[in-house]
Amino acid sequence: MDLGDNLSVVFRGVHDLRLEKCPIPVPRDDEVLLKVDSVGICGSDLHLMKNGFLGFWEIKPPLVIGHEAAGTVLEVGRNVTDLKEGDRVVIDTLPRCEKCTCCREGRHNICTHPTLGVDTQVNGCMTRYYTHPAKLCYRLPTAMSLEEAAVVEPLAIGLYACRRGNVRQGSVVLVIGAGSVGLLTLAMSKACGATKVIVTDVSQWRLDKAKELGADFTLKVEPNDPEDLIVRRITSLLDDRPTVSFDCAGFQSTARVAVKATASGGTVVLVGISGKVDMDLPVRDILTREIDIRGCYANVNDFQTAIEMIAAGKINVKTLITHHYQIDDALKAFNVLKDGTGNAIKVLIHPN
Amino acid sequence: MDLGDNLSVVFRGVHDLRLEKCPIPVPRDDEVLLKVDSVGICGSDLHLMKNGFLGFWEIKPPLVIGHEAAGTVLEVGRNVTDLKEGDRVVIDTLPRCEKCTCCREGRHNICTHPTLGVDTQVNGCMTRYYTHPAKLCYRLPTAMSLEEAAVVEPLAIGLYACRRGNVRQGSVVLVIGAGSVGLLTLAMSKACGATKVIVTDVSQWRLDKAKELGADFTLKVEPNDPEDLIVRRITSLLDDRPTVSFDCAGFQSTARVAVKATASGGTVVLVGISGKVDMDLPVRDILTREIDIRGCYANVNDFQTAIEMIAAGKINVKTLITHHYQIDDALKAFNVLKDGTGNAIKVLIHPN
Amino acid sequence: MDLGDNLSVVFRGVHDLRLEKCPIPVPRDDEVLLKVDSVGICGSDLHLMKNGFLGFWEIKPPLVIGHEAAGTVLEVGRNVTDLKEGDRVVIDTLPRCEKCTCCREGRHNICTHPTLGVDTQVNGCMTRYYTHPAKLCYRLPTAMSLEEAAVVEPLAIGLYACRRGNVRQGSVVLVIGAGSVGLLTLAMSKACGATKVIVTDVSQWRLDKAKELGADFTLKVEPNDPEDLIVRRITSLLDDRPTVSFDCAGFQSTARVAVKATASGGTVVLVGISGKVDMDLPVRDILTREIDIRGCYANVNDFQTAIEMIAAGKINVKTLITHHYQIDDALKAFNVLKDGTGNAIKVLIHPN
Amino acid sequence: MDLGDNLSVVFRGVHDLRLEKCPIPVPRDDEVLLKVDSVGICGSDLHLMKNGFLGFWEIKPPLVIGHEAAGTVLEVGRNVTDLKEGDRVVIDTLPRCEKCTCCREGRHNICTHPTLGVDTQVNGCMTRYYTHPAKLCYRLPTAMSLEEAAVVEPLAIGLYACRRGNVRQGSVVLVIGAGSVGLLTLAMSKACGATKVIVTDVSQWRLDKAKELGADFTLKVEPNDPEDLIVRRITSLLDDRPTVSFDCAGFQSTARVAVKATASGGTVVLVGISGKVDMDLPVRDILTREIDIRGCYANVNDFQTAIEMIAAGKINVKTLITHHYQIDDALKAFNVLKDGTGNAIKVLIHPN
Repeated sequence: MDLGDNLSVVFRGVHDLRLEKCPIPVPRDDEVLLKVDSVGICGSDLHLMKNGFLGFWEIKPPLVIGHEAAGTVLEVGRNVTDLKEGDRVVIDTLPRCEKCTCCREGRHNICTHPTLGVDTQVNGCMTRYYTHPAKLCYRLPTAMSLEEAAVVEPLAIGLYACRRGNVRQGSVVLVIGAGSVGLLTLAMSKACGATKVIVTDVSQWRLDKAKELGADFTLKVEPNDPEDLIVRRITSLLDDRPTVSFDCAGFQSTARVAVKATASGGTVVLVGISGKVDMDLPVRDILTREIDIRGCYANVNDFQTAIEMIAAGKINVKTLITHHYQIDDALKAFNVLKDGTGNAIKVLIHPN
Repeated sequence: MDLGDNLSVVFRGVHDLRLEKCPIPVPRDDEVLLKVDSVGICGSDLHLMKNGFLGFWEIKPPLVIGHEAAGTVLEVGRNVTDLKEGDRVVIDTLPRCEKCTCCREGRHNICTHPTLGVDTQVNGCMTRYYTHPAKLCYRLPTAMSLEEAAVVEPLAIGLYACRRGNVRQGSVVLVIGAGSVGLLTLAMSKACGATKVIVTDVSQWRLDKAKELGADFTLKVEPNDPEDLIVRRITSLLDDRPTVSFDCAGFQSTARVAVKATASGGTVVLVGISGKVDMDLPVRDILTREIDIRGCYANVNDFQTAIEMIAAGKINVKTLITHHYQIDDALKAFNVLKDGTGNAIKVLIHPN
Repeated sequence: MDLGDNLSVVFRGVHDLRLEKCPIPVPRDDEVLLKVDSVGICGSDLHLMKNGFLGFWEIKPPLVIGHEAAGTVLEVGRNVTDLKEGDRVVIDTLPRCEKCTCCREGRHNICTHPTLGVDTQVNGCMTRYYTHPAKLCYRLPTAMSLEEAAVVEPLAIGLYACRRGNVRQGSVVLVIGAGSVGLLTLAMSKACGATKVIVTDVSQWRLDKAKELGADFTLKVEPNDPEDLIVRRITSLLDDRPTVSFDCAGFQSTARVAVKATASGGTVVLVGISGKVDMDLPVRDILTREIDIRGCYANVNDFQTAIEMIAAGKINVKTLITHHYQIDDALKAFNVLKDGTGNAIKVLIHPN
Repeated sequence: MDLGDNLSVVFRGVHDLRLEKCPIPVPRDDEVLLKVDSVGICGSDLHLMKNGFLGFWEIKPPLVIGHEAAGTVLEVGRNVTDLKEGDRVVIDTLPRCEKCTCCREGRHNICTHPTLGVDTQVNGCMTRYYTHPAKLCYRLPTAMSLEEAAVVEPLAIGLYACRRGNVRQGSVVLVIGAGSVGLLTLAMSKACGATKVIVTDVSQWRLDKAKELGADFTLKVEPNDPEDLIVRRITSLLDDRPTVSFDCAGFQSTARVAVKATASGGTVVLVGISGKVDMDLPVRDILTREIDIRGCYANVNDFQTAIEMIAAGKINVKTLITHHYQIDDALKAFNVLKDGTGNAIKVLIHPN
């Protein structure tokens, strides 16, 4: 089988992404070789390109980036029994050492082993051919397209965020930031039974998308609105305080609003990775009103449920896919997100 | 029965505590009248005297202060069947409306009803005679003195802090601040099965007390030590990161050390009330290493267990009671705590 | 105001319900007087009429029965500030002493105080005029009828059952028994995000109702089907084992099927009150596959969410209300349920 | 290095254990070769010998039995970096596929992969030389003997049982059955902060051992005592109902006593494996008093904490080791346990 080249999007330094031909990898005994169909650009990919780091991870070029991928199995390693050639799969690229305390306790998303990160330490999947452990590949239902599958990972984050925040029937939810993760967290909150969900953002067109995905209320804010004013508007629209608040924007100002708005005994979930190292937070609320703050990093075994929800039509992820690019135009794809032009939400790269 | 006067410690304004004779109260149908024996001075009482507020509560003078009290039942209201004259009790002064969502969910410590706070909204118990709902009085075992009983409330806080932090067999614990609540949190952590507990403070004599109460390690810090140095010393002494950290000091610098030191997936519990409204916290750790931040306000039904632990000799609270004063010398008692002289930990007022 | 008589349905002994005129009660300071509009007949009312006991409670005649009631406020006690004449409310009749350990921990549904049970120890609300503590009355949204409100209590049970079983996105659910509680548990499971729900019953028309309320699969069983066959059919239809199973039928055979079908690490929730004192259960599954068994008694503060769900149209409770009777025909109403004729699910009595 | 033979205890059929020379195994890349020092005989080994099955697992002879083992590393596979020759370790023999839902959720103790069970499906470690995955070997502190190490596994069960039952400060605990697991569950309950622990058994000498390990109360029962009488004696001695009850005996009669004695809202943990497939249980208590029933199978990552507790002197496991045998006398060792003579609690085999 002639696979041609393995064109890949390679991080060569800050603001320096290049298209390069990499070797076609060979699957190990427990791995499969995938022909990649669709790869989403994550906010963290953009952050990485701009800053050269992600969370605590310094990125050492050259590194193929990308971690939201779906594709088709081309070849299976000799120990692989659960998959076969032609299977359509989405892949969970989260590293896990299976030895550290976090991994043993079922929290591999915060595995403390330092050298395993796909997309930060080892090559990612914005590439034509990619090898991956079979047990981290999830087969797709017939009814689900590979494009939808590329949105499984961000939806899994939305589900994990709801689990961290314990969203359930009767929850009143605040989602700050209507990017792709914020929108999916909103949709997931409604699916988990939240009675009222309010979404805030600075862009009206993003808020319109929030309405389309089921937001009960939206609030357009301006960058310089005083936080207490925003809090008052939120509680006034809800006629209540949120019991669970998600900061999907990642600014100090948004985290502060989340804490101050939340009901006593409620939870604030910090979602996604911000460039901020420190933030000035309202600890008096945290302490005397017992507002729990919980980080939310990636997801933990949430792929299968995310797949089932898309397949069952519970969440329409297609409405989030605003742009498609061939891999040759990957740099354009990054730019459409970076510039904030073109009302981009989820941008997909198609390597093949 | 001639009860004499009802001498009380009254807050008349910032730095203005006075001894005044108040009316002797009459118990309502569900209440008892208590002859108060011992009242501990809480750090929050000191804070209130210095600042005129506590958390979100503005204190309106005149107000009798004090909420850590034990005494003897003098008279019972007509609906009271569980207590009788002569019973020795410690009282839970935490307000609860029994209607708001927090109260209904068993979290009355963060009751959202604004006007019930003993010691902040209604008169406290640094007084000779005090009335209190019978159902919030806990009878003492024979073996337990009324002086020990005055330490039940801060021990209940230590227990609640451990419950908030889920301290259990195998936990590795950091306690920052070796005041009375810090020391009791340490002792409680050991009683809950923590494998290793380290305590940090700026005073060597407090750390010696920590050793006496079971600390496996102590670390004397200087106010200007860089936080990363403190974190390294903590993890080096423990040969590990703490899985649960308690900030019992309430400074930004201590809260930051708590977050940075804690193991991935661990918990930081903010204990006691600080004057700080905002703090600059290391959110990158909170988010990417999923360090949960949990406020810990007062306690929730932890009196009975605290009483049993003292009675069973599990925790020696006597070693914390460093000073005794008659109510006539209450101002001296506050000064010994305020000045930080005399190595005071728990200071008791004896109104009768 | 002339209220006329207070006609009530009174339990006078096993199989001996009578219509009697009772005194019109006067509200205490914290109570309201209600004009009762709709009262549902609960399976437990039927059980009580047939057997003269409920769970551990022996019923001592004469006793007005009924506990699923909605009505209009006629008069308020002098301490009542939250309600006023004309308010439409549904009432939570669950007793609570607010002193025992269960009540203090927010589990008043299993309050250990023995003499408070509405409908078992004190008079229930199948009556024209009824007094009730104001804080246990829930005001209805304008859009919601008093008839729908009479179904709030059983829906609250369905919600509590889902909370006990931790139904969430991705759960696979088995509901055994398609009476009103089973049907509402099914509907609630779907609303909580269950991916697949299967309902079993012996009646096809009940299963049709289950389909209408969102069941993904239904299975008609015969009383003598071997349990292993039923288990195989369930797992075959689901193509999976349920992660949460609800026994809403209350027979030994159904509880056994629930345990055997459930996935390792899953939960079986026993819902509603059965006459059975003991049951032969498959402990080998319980122990080696860690199937948790959880009782589910009544509900815990689930009224408000149940009301919001009905008002928001999330669950159509009207489809369950199959019969209406004036109070004069109350005995007929009990008979239609007892006989199993007329395809009765929820039968309402209208006292006024 | 001449290792001599690999004498092993082999199950050849019901009541047919034999000493046989097996091949000396060679470690795979991720494994180590161990020289086994001490192996405890588990109640499940005895059960297996008598019945030929364990839980759902049919045992197919020939099979080397034994799973409570400690030894010294002789050789390491080429990928092993954490261990070296000469390291003293205790091994966790619990199988895990790392693929099934249970494994992914951190509950590998109930892994649903059917063919991995050490001691049931694959050869166990009552043998001179044994290979094991390096990541399932726990290095011992210097102060800890290999004999003590052989009791780590049953202590880990006691810890896991306490975690399943959520034993904490203030818990009131009932332990039924004072065999080795019952005694270790008692000791662990005290270490986790249980206020009062009562232990019941039919043997006075076992109850004396319970007293030595910290039981607050003991109760000698006779096989034919009526269950309600036993329940009354338990609650009378405790002056309370237990909040957590452990059935470590595994009979229907003991499980029933556990349920009936437990406080409303409490938990019954079924520990260890019984031969019973079904049991008649008091479901009325389970349902109306919400007594949760939880199976407890083996342990989940509890070795490290168990090791630290023994090393720290928190639990004296030496007092449980009543008998030692060379491997040549292994059959005698099984007989001393089977006959119930000689007051045997933990019996160790020393293969080398």
